[in-house]
Amino acid sequence: MYILISNDDGYQSQGILTLAARLGTVARVTVMAPDRDRSGASNSLTLEDPIRVNEVEPGRYRVQGTPTDCVHLALTGLLEADPDMVFSGINAGGNLGDDVLYSGTVAAAMEGRYLGLPAVAVSLVGGWAPQHYETAARVAVKLLEQMQDDPLPTDTILNVNVPDLPWEELQGFHATRLGCRHRAEAVIQQHDPRGRPIYWIGPPGSEQDAGPGTDFYAVRNGYVSVTPIQVDLTRYEVLEQVGGWLQGVTL
Amino acid sequence: MYILISNDDGYQSQGILTLAARLGTVARVTVMAPDRDRSGASNSLTLEDPIRVNEVEPGRYRVQGTPTDCVHLALTGLLEADPDMVFSGINAGGNLGDDVLYSGTVAAAMEGRYLGLPAVAVSLVGGWAPQHYETAARVAVKLLEQMQDDPLPTDTILNVNVPDLPWEELQGFHATRLGCRHRAEAVIQQHDPRGRPIYWIGPPGSEQDAGPGTDFYAVRNGYVSVTPIQVDLTRYEVLEQVGGWLQGVTL
Amino acid sequence: MYILISNDDGYQSQGILTLAARLGTVARVTVMAPDRDRSGASNSLTLEDPIRVNEVEPGRYRVQGTPTDCVHLALTGLLEADPDMVFSGINAGGNLGDDVLYSGTVAAAMEGRYLGLPAVAVSLVGGWAPQHYETAARVAVKLLEQMQDDPLPTDTILNVNVPDLPWEELQGFHATRLGCRHRAEAVIQQHDPRGRPIYWIGPPGSEQDAGPGTDFYAVRNGYVSVTPIQVDLTRYEVLEQVGGWLQGVTL
Amino acid sequence: MYILISNDDGYQSQGILTLAARLGTVARVTVMAPDRDRSGASNSLTLEDPIRVNEVEPGRYRVQGTPTDCVHLALTGLLEADPDMVFSGINAGGNLGDDVLYSGTVAAAMEGRYLGLPAVAVSLVGGWAPQHYETAARVAVKLLEQMQDDPLPTDTILNVNVPDLPWEELQGFHATRLGCRHRAEAVIQQHDPRGRPIYWIGPPGSEQDAGPGTDFYAVRNGYVSVTPIQVDLTRYEVLEQVGGWLQGVTL
Repeated sequence: MYILISNDDGYQSQGILTLAARLGTVARVTVMAPDRDRSGASNSLTLEDPIRVNEVEPGRYRVQGTPTDCVHLALTGLLEADPDMVFSGINAGGNLGDDVLYSGTVAAAMEGRYLGLPAVAVSLVGGWAPQHYETAARVAVKLLEQMQDDPLPTDTILNVNVPDLPWEELQGFHATRLGCRHRAEAVIQQHDPRGRPIYWIGPPGSEQDAGPGTDFYAVRNGYVSVTPIQVDLTRYEVLEQVGGWLQGVTL
Repeated sequence: MYILISNDDGYQSQGILTLAARLGTVARVTVMAPDRDRSGASNSLTLEDPIRVNEVEPGRYRVQGTPTDCVHLALTGLLEADPDMVFSGINAGGNLGDDVLYSGTVAAAMEGRYLGLPAVAVSLVGGWAPQHYETAARVAVKLLEQMQDDPLPTDTILNVNVPDLPWEELQGFHATRLGCRHRAEAVIQQHDPRGRPIYWIGPPGSEQDAGPGTDFYAVRNGYVSVTPIQVDLTRYEVLEQVGGWLQGVTL
Repeated sequence: MYILISNDDGYQSQGILTLAARLGTVARVTVMAPDRDRSGASNSLTLEDPIRVNEVEPGRYRVQGTPTDCVHLALTGLLEADPDMVFSGINAGGNLGDDVLYSGTVAAAMEGRYLGLPAVAVSLVGGWAPQHYETAARVAVKLLEQMQDDPLPTDTILNVNVPDLPWEELQGFHATRLGCRHRAEAVIQQHDPRGRPIYWIGPPGSEQDAGPGTDFYAVRNGYVSVTPIQVDLTRYEVLEQVGGWLQGVTL
Repeated sequence: MYILISNDDGYQSQGILTLAARLGTVARVTVMAPDRDRSGASNSLTLEDPIRVNEVEPGRYRVQGTPTDCVHLALTGLLEADPDMVFSGINAGGNLGDDVLYSGTVAAAMEGRYLGLPAVAVSLVGGWAPQHYETAARVAVKLLEQMQDDPLPTDTILNVNVPDLPWEELQGFHATRLGCRHRAEAVIQQHDPRGRPIYWIGPPGSEQDAGPGTDFYAVRNGYVSVTPIQVDLTRYEVLEQVGGWLQGVTL
C-alpha cells in the first residue's frame, strides 16, 4: 500500500505531520504539500507560473504551489510510481457544507480521482486551533484498514470531518450529506497604514441546512462525518427541464 | 434587471469587454473582475491577504483577487444593491468536462448562487485565442431574454460553451451533461536560467467521455452547450452504500 | 531623442500617464511599467519566476514585474533599439533621504545607468495623493531640454523631488544631498479575520538630517530638489580604515 | 552580545543554518528570515500586504516577507530588545560589484544600520551551489571577534565575500572596493505550455572593472573580500557640477 499525502495548510503543519506519522506505520507514504498555508485554494491550478519542488527529506516534498498542484504534479510525472490512494489533511478546521467548494483539502483529494482506491480528505472540526489531531489520524487509519478489507468503488472521494475530541469520546461514524450555510458574513473593510481601503473576505455564513443527515449534525453530536463527494458537477435532475427551456431560445 | 459580470481572464480581456458591452444594451451592468489573468483559479478565496479594489470607471472594478473573491465581495457588501444575477466570461477557451473543476469562470458563476436568478458562465471554445466573442455575447443575451420570459429555479447555474463560429453558423442549443477527460498530460519539466528545475502543469487530458449528450459532443457539432451545474457536491447515489460500509469501521 | 519611461506605481497611474504625455511632445517615448503598484520594490529583480509582458497599445507595455525588471528587460532585448535615456515616475509621493533605498522609482532610473544620457527619477512630494502632476511633468521637460543643451556625464542619475505646487509657485531648482530619517515608526500589528496576527511595515521615520543643503529642506521651501545618485555603493572614505582594521584578523 | 541573523535564501537554507550555528557558539542569536528564496529582493519592503511571522522554534522566525522586511520588523517592534548587530547570509553565491544593488543579503545588513555595531553581509562565492559554508561561518566569527576588540564606527556596513575554499586554503583578508560588471546578458525568452511568451532575467554581465583593489580580484585570488558599503547614495563629487548645471534651467 503506497499513499500520497497532501494538504492545504502547508507541509510543516501539525495536521499533515500527524497524519503522515500515523499512516506511515501501516503503509508507505510520500508527502507532497504546499510550502505555506493555502487555505481556500479550492481546485486552483497554477497555470501562469512554473512550480518549484524541493525534497526536504526522503519522501517529503515542499511545493511552491496549491494543493491541487501538489497532487497533479505527483500523478503526472513527479513520482516514480503511482500511489494507490491519496489522503489529504488533517485540516486545521472543518470542511462542512459549502466550505467544500473552497477547500484546498478536499481539492487535493479530488485530484486523486484517477487512482485505484478512494481518496480521502480529513478535517478536524474545532475552530482555527483544534487540538486532537491524533484522533483524526486514528480515524484515517481505521478508514484505510476498512478500505483494504472492503474496497469502495475506485472513483469514490470521501470528505471526512472529525470532531475535536479525545478518541474515547467519539460516538461513531455517520455517512452524511453536505449541509449548507447561509450567505457569508459581510466583507470586512479596513485601511492599510497608508490610508487606502482594503477588504478581507468575511467569515463563512451560519448553518442553514444542518439537520439530521448532514455533516454539520453528525459532527455536532460527536460523530465522525463521512460524505461521499462527486467530481461530476452536472446537475442531472434538471437536465431535462433545461432542455425544454432551451427550446424557447431561437437563433 | 441588474447584472454583475466577472471572469477569470482579467478585467481588460476582450471577452469581458464584449460581454459587458452586449449585456449593457439590455440591462444595467456592473463589472467586477480580477486585475490580471486568473485562469485555473477554481473557487479559490483569498484568505491570507486583504484584497484591493479600484473603480477604474463608473461601474467597472479591478480587483486584486480571484474570480470568486470578486463575486463574493460584490455580494457581501461592496455593491450598494444586490444584482439580480451573475454572468461570468466570456472565457478565452472552453470549460468542458473536468475543466469545470479548475475553472475560475465557472467558479465566479457558482458564487452567484444566492441570487434571485440563475448564474451563467460563458466560454468560447476555440483554443487559446478564439475569435468570435460577438457570437458568445449574443448567446448570453438570448439566454438572458429567455430567463426573463421563463425563469429557471433560482439556484440554477448554467455552464455555457459556445463554438468559435460566426453567429449564422451556430446549429442551435443543447442541454448537456459534462463529459470527462483522461488524466492530464505529463508535467513539463524545464530548468530556470540558474539551472534549477521548474515544473509546469501539463495540458488537460484528451477526451474520454465525449459522446452524444456531452458538452464536448455538442460543441464539436456546432451547438451551444448548456450544462446545469450543481454546488452540492454530495454524491447521493452512494450515500447508502457508504453508510453500510462504515458499519465495518469500529472505534 | 528616444526615452524609456517606467515607474513603480503601475502603468495606469496618473503620474506615468502625465509624464509620458508631456515627454511625448518633445521626444519619442516608450512606456514599460509594472502592471500594478510596486511601491517599495527597490532594485528587486524577479529571478524565481518568468515575467510576462503585454503591449497594451503601441509603445506602451504592461509588465508583471518590478520597476527594475521593466528597465532591465527593455535594455537587454525587449526593445528594438536602446533608448537614449530613462525617466522614472512621476511617483505619487516623495523619495527623500533614506526613502531612496527602498524606492522602486529611483531603482528604475538606476537601471538605466548603461545608457548614453543621465537617468532621471521624478517624484511629487505631497502625501499619498499629491495633485500637481503637471508641475512635475514640466520639470521633467525642463531637465530634458537642459540635458540636450549641456549634457551631464553619461553615468549620472538624478533623483528629482518636486513640491506639490502649481508651476508658478515653484521657487527654483536646488542641487541637494540626501537627508536622512530617524528609524522607522513601530510595526503595526493587527489580526486577520481568523484571529491570526499580521504585521504592517510602519511609516517612515521623521526627518533627522533635514537642514539646508538636503533634499528635505529644498522641497519644504518650494524648490525642486535635484540629487545626483551613485550606484557604486563602496564607502571609499573608510576603505583605508577597514584595511588597517582587517590586519587584526588572523586566519 | 546579541545578534540578529537574516538572509535572502530563506530560513531553511544551508547558509543561514551554518551561520547561526557558528555565531550561536559565541553570542546569543535570533534568526528572522524569509520563508522562501528571495534572491534579488534588494531593499524591497512589503507595503501592499501585511506580513506573517511564525516562530518555528525558540529564537527562529519564518517571515512571509523580504529580507528587508525581516530586519525592519525585528528592529521596529518584533524583538523584545534591540540586537547589537546584524549578520546576513551566508548567501549561496557571491555578491560582487553591481550585484550589491540587487542583493537581498546586503539589503538585510543595510537595514541594520541603526544599531550599535556594524552590520555584516556574508556571501560564499562559488556558483549556484557553493560548498564551504563552514569557511564562511568561521570568517564571520573572526570578524565578530575583531569588532569586539576594535570596534568600527556604528554605521559601518561590511559586504564580505568568501571564496568557496577549505579554511586552510584562504589567503587572508582584503579591504576592497566594488568592481563592476558589463551590462547583463540578454533576456531569455521562452514560451509557456499554452504558447504564450515569457521572459527570464538573464545572467549578470561579465566583469568590467575587476582589477586589483576590487572585490572580484580579491576573491579570485583566494582572499576574503571586505567592502565597506554606504547607505547614503548621494554622489557628492558631482554635487557642485549639478548645481552649476541647474542654473541653466529656468522656470
